[in-house]
Amino acid sequence: MAETLPHQTVERADILLKGGTVITMDSQRRIVSPGAVAIRGRDILAVGPAAEIEARYAAEQTLDCRDHIVMPGLVNTHTHLPMSLLRGLADDLRLDVWLHGYILPVEREFVTPEFCFLGTLLACAEMLRGGVTCFADMYYHEEEVAWAAVQAGMRGLCGETITKLPTPDAKTYEQSLQYCADFLAHWAAHETIVAVPAPHSIYMCTPEILRETTQLARQAGVLQMMHVSETADEVEHWVAQTAMRPFRWLEDQGLLEWPLLAAHCVHINEEEMVLMARHGVGVAHNPTSNLKLASGFAPVAGMLAQGIAVGLGTDGCASNNDLDMWEEMRLAALLAKGVTGSPLALPAAQAVAMATIEGARALHLDHLIGSLEAGKRADIIVARLDDTYAVPRFETTGQNIYSHLVYAAKACAVRDVFVNGRLVLRDGHLLTVDEAEVREQAWAMARRINRFFIEREKSVLDKLVDIGTLEQQETFEVQAKGLLHDVQTFARGLEHPEIHITQHTSRDQYDTYFLFADPSQGRLRYREDHIIQPGGGVQPVYTLTLLGPAAEAEYAHSVVLTRSRYTAPADRSLRFYREYFQPRAIREISKHRERYHIRYKGLDFAVNLDRITHPPREGYYVEIKSRTWSQQDAVRKASLIAELLTILGAQPEDMLPLDYVDLFDEAK
Amino acid sequence: MAETLPHQTVERADILLKGGTVITMDSQRRIVSPGAVAIRGRDILAVGPAAEIEARYAAEQTLDCRDHIVMPGLVNTHTHLPMSLLRGLADDLRLDVWLHGYILPVEREFVTPEFCFLGTLLACAEMLRGGVTCFADMYYHEEEVAWAAVQAGMRGLCGETITKLPTPDAKTYEQSLQYCADFLAHWAAHETIVAVPAPHSIYMCTPEILRETTQLARQAGVLQMMHVSETADEVEHWVAQTAMRPFRWLEDQGLLEWPLLAAHCVHINEEEMVLMARHGVGVAHNPTSNLKLASGFAPVAGMLAQGIAVGLGTDGCASNNDLDMWEEMRLAALLAKGVTGSPLALPAAQAVAMATIEGARALHLDHLIGSLEAGKRADIIVARLDDTYAVPRFETTGQNIYSHLVYAAKACAVRDVFVNGRLVLRDGHLLTVDEAEVREQAWAMARRINRFFIEREKSVLDKLVDIGTLEQQETFEVQAKGLLHDVQTFARGLEHPEIHITQHTSRDQYDTYFLFADPSQGRLRYREDHIIQPGGGVQPVYTLTLLGPAAEAEYAHSVVLTRSRYTAPADRSLRFYREYFQPRAIREISKHRERYHIRYKGLDFAVNLDRITHPPREGYYVEIKSRTWSQQDAVRKASLIAELLTILGAQPEDMLPLDYVDLFDEAK
Repeated sequence: MAETLPHQTVERADILLKGGTVITMDSQRRIVSPGAVAIRGRDILAVGPAAEIEARYAAEQTLDCRDHIVMPGLVNTHTHLPMSLLRGLADDLRLDVWLHGYILPVEREFVTPEFCFLGTLLACAEMLRGGVTCFADMYYHEEEVAWAAVQAGMRGLCGETITKLPTPDAKTYEQSLQYCADFLAHWAAHETIVAVPAPHSIYMCTPEILRETTQLARQAGVLQMMHVSETADEVEHWVAQTAMRPFRWLEDQGLLEWPLLAAHCVHINEEEMVLMARHGVGVAHNPTSNLKLASGFAPVAGMLAQGIAVGLGTDGCASNNDLDMWEEMRLAALLAKGVTGSPLALPAAQAVAMATIEGARALHLDHLIGSLEAGKRADIIVARLDDTYAVPRFETTGQNIYSHLVYAAKACAVRDVFVNGRLVLRDGHLLTVDEAEVREQAWAMARRINRFFIEREKSVLDKLVDIGTLEQQETFEVQAKGLLHDVQTFARGLEHPEIHITQHTSRDQYDTYFLFADPSQGRLRYREDHIIQPGGGVQPVYTLTLLGPAAEAEYAHSVVLTRSRYTAPADRSLRFYREYFQPRAIREISKHRERYHIRYKGLDFAVNLDRITHPPREGYYVEIKSRTWSQQDAVRKASLIAELLTILGAQPEDMLPLDYVDLFDEAK
Repeated sequence: MAETLPHQTVERADILLKGGTVITMDSQRRIVSPGAVAIRGRDILAVGPAAEIEARYAAEQTLDCRDHIVMPGLVNTHTHLPMSLLRGLADDLRLDVWLHGYILPVEREFVTPEFCFLGTLLACAEMLRGGVTCFADMYYHEEEVAWAAVQAGMRGLCGETITKLPTPDAKTYEQSLQYCADFLAHWAAHETIVAVPAPHSIYMCTPEILRETTQLARQAGVLQMMHVSETADEVEHWVAQTAMRPFRWLEDQGLLEWPLLAAHCVHINEEEMVLMARHGVGVAHNPTSNLKLASGFAPVAGMLAQGIAVGLGTDGCASNNDLDMWEEMRLAALLAKGVTGSPLALPAAQAVAMATIEGARALHLDHLIGSLEAGKRADIIVARLDDTYAVPRFETTGQNIYSHLVYAAKACAVRDVFVNGRLVLRDGHLLTVDEAEVREQAWAMARRINRFFIEREKSVLDKLVDIGTLEQQETFEVQAKGLLHDVQTFARGLEHPEIHITQHTSRDQYDTYFLFADPSQGRLRYREDHIIQPGGGVQPVYTLTLLGPAAEAEYAHSVVLTRSRYTAPADRSLRFYREYFQPRAIREISKHRERYHIRYKGLDFAVNLDRITHPPREGYYVEIKSRTWSQQDAVRKASLIAELLTILGAQPEDMLPLDYVDLFDEAK
């Protein structure tokens, strides 16, 4: 029989957290010390002074929280969880090298449902240990992310990523949209998982895709999620294309009529902030990622001043490289001060709010989580207050405790974590995930990825293929090159009765050769071809050519047969290629070229008359080449080239190595 | 009898660290995995592949370092260790409020030798746990810092701080210099402590002090240490005063002829960097502190490009709020990218170098520490590699391991620490400091400081006294204020035969009243007095007045006796006072005042004719007051004021509250 006290009924709770400093993050920012929290089922029953709560509630399980902080679980508003498996794969690189050289190739090769499930488990283990109880994810095979989160016992918004290009889980965007629709239907009204559509960004989607994803979100009654204005480049391109900044364009397209969680928002202006506030756009601010990729400084103080709900996010592990929300709190608070020049900017209490209740508001989950209040879900963490690095602590103002959390506390101080009323981390032991097993599997996956990259790094060609600009093809050419003593002989030679000029162009060629430690890799040549137009103008053409390592065969008169000249339009910058291929050495050679296509004895040859301008070098050179497709054809062409050389005035003793670069490369 | 192998003598070592990934930070940046380190006495005997070292050395003690990193101990190049006891005392404040409102008052009150010893022990415990083996400190009672570091088993440069003003350990700078000379002599040639002079900064010293400290450093053969160009303000003032930027001035004074470790260097230009490089100035870069106090972004990439030795520092705990060098590595690497706009800036390997060998170079200790090389001192840390937040890890390039350390690893991963060959942290247990005891004493100190501030926060007067602008004094005044219906009567009244005008000024007065929650605190008035000069110019005078909470006595005709009008010149900005005093409410009142000093019946009175301009209010007011010093005098003056009010045309029913602010304050 239940005992009753004279003035008060003792109610039943499942768990009592007793004696800690309770930071509620409620609208009054109430701090209760010593305080207590009563939990029943998934919900918080009551929060208040320890004596009061303990008198009112009896629970089977109590946790002694003396010398500890009790606070709402942290909300990670932007991440790509499966990328935990790519932690530290490629750092300190340009965004395009990082993305096209590493992340996209590995995603094409490795990102399967199993990868996503495993990566999410690893990420959830890390996040729970660090006091994160809720995340907003954007990745592929998001069904697996959701299942792994359920297993780990985390709350999450799971965003299925959609782009106009093929992705690891869809060959076309129609498939992607269908996956997304099924995914949303499957997880509708789940207790802890919210399935949402996550179009990657306006530039990686089409207006049709975006209309469709907004429609999916609206039908399911869930948020939509997207990267917006992460880099200055993407905004510039968008403005050039549409004459509208991204948020103006989104509004114009009607896509802000339904709630949106926008990640990054680094390059937004005042006008856009007004639109964002008006349409209740939630923002995921990712200070580490924005610095690490040099994306810029998000105008956080401005967004907060507009009343926009700004949460904090870690972004994916491949650009952070961890999922530590304490570091994001600290960095957000520090960075805002540096950027505004005011030590008053983004005070500690605001950083804690961004990591909890404001993050929940950005996710449209603030009615359920983000603060410790009766009736909300019990997403609660308990963290040590008395590690040496956090001693002592003051109580001179109501702000000290927030300072402590932001500027001194660390992820490793988290002791216990509850999600939806369930104890998932106890005394530093994770109860839902077999961490050792997950780590072992992560190591195994990393070893596979390692091997893939080590093999690839060995092969310049594979790297070239990986960035997708090259059609893999082999060509054979017969060719020779010689010094001309007398350019008049060459001019007269072209008038030889058996030579017919079919085409003639003049061009300046600026060649950059990448040389590699292993000569069997060949050399990569980046060529800027400035073709001089009849009117005097210049038509630039950029090509990238992988020159085979050696001659396949050598004929009389130093005519050689070469192979493996992989050529592709060079649609990226020289800088990109330099950083991506990391050559051992670089050589630059410029020349002026008169280029003739001729027919000689019924066969086609290219004849080049070259003058090297850099490094400066006296004299003229002749080069003759022809494509070939059989051994017999090659032999015949080699003999015709020998004849042509004589006609054009190059002597056998004046023959040169195949590439101009070998004239200069002292390493050879 | 020692066994010998056929081809190799087995040598004796004291300790072998076996099987870890050894990051040497030597000039080749050699990484050995699995590697081993042999230690004998204070020195590193050998570093190399595990198999080789294990075959060559036999040791009584071996540490299994598999799945761990073995690397040089971190070097914290700038800190104020005893301030660990002030951790989180006052954050998110302007530099001047933080310094003058909190740090200087607490230093005046609490900073004793015992405080410095205790604070250093606490700081060393934190640093050793986080893998820091060497520090460069600047504080007071530095003798105690040195003793505490010896007890904790840390290596340190201990800088005795010298300023032109009184400090906690010296009433005059001559005393300070004498303390410093004795201190240097006492610790000369110590094994792990280097005692150095640390003039605070050029603006807190005089040229004579700086010459003297350079001389002390030179005689002792040690480095000198100083804050340089931390804030834009200090540089601007220095340039205005000397027409030289700080490093130019230091060179001009000959102070760079002897090695200098300069902390911060945030606001330096290209020319100064050349001077710094030329004179071998070492730099302590403090990314967290520079952001937290909004000092600015140090041009780190520029300094590194000049070949300047740039180390990392945490600064003191009161501006960080911890001593975590892993956070500084991470932030230095991230911030440089954000500031330069390039993700290639300050790559991870460079951040690790700054925290180790480059820091050692900045301290002129790189011949002893900073890398793992045979013959150097054994300052070594062993850290876990396989915590969940750091799994997996790749080996695609030689940079992955540095990425891991900078972007993923955490202070709490440090397992073992050696300083000078001595094991001081083992398996996370600190062997040299009784941490629980130190924490307990730190809490006790914090409680005392807490009480001091809580008492002070209760008293506006104490806060006023603390910032040192006020001479504490009480005054009594008899005064009255009334509405004038007719300004002609006032003008005629001044011509009364018994009234003699001795002085007359016109002025505009802009008053800002700070009101506090507790009315017994009184009100603080910040007054800008624009005194109109005979020629029409304006002479501004700024005064701060604490108005007593209530009248001491009231006489006929609403004449009152007031007390405690503490007045001081207001030499700080209104913004400063607002943030420092944090009033509950602020009221602004402007008026034009004709001020008369008169003699009436042989006594002095001040008579003011006021017209309130803001908030706009009709009519004129008269105020009459006189200082008093006895009850009898007060009674007599009260009766004369009543007479004067009648003469000047204010009726008893028109009398007003003492302060204009009460006319407007609806809260009253």
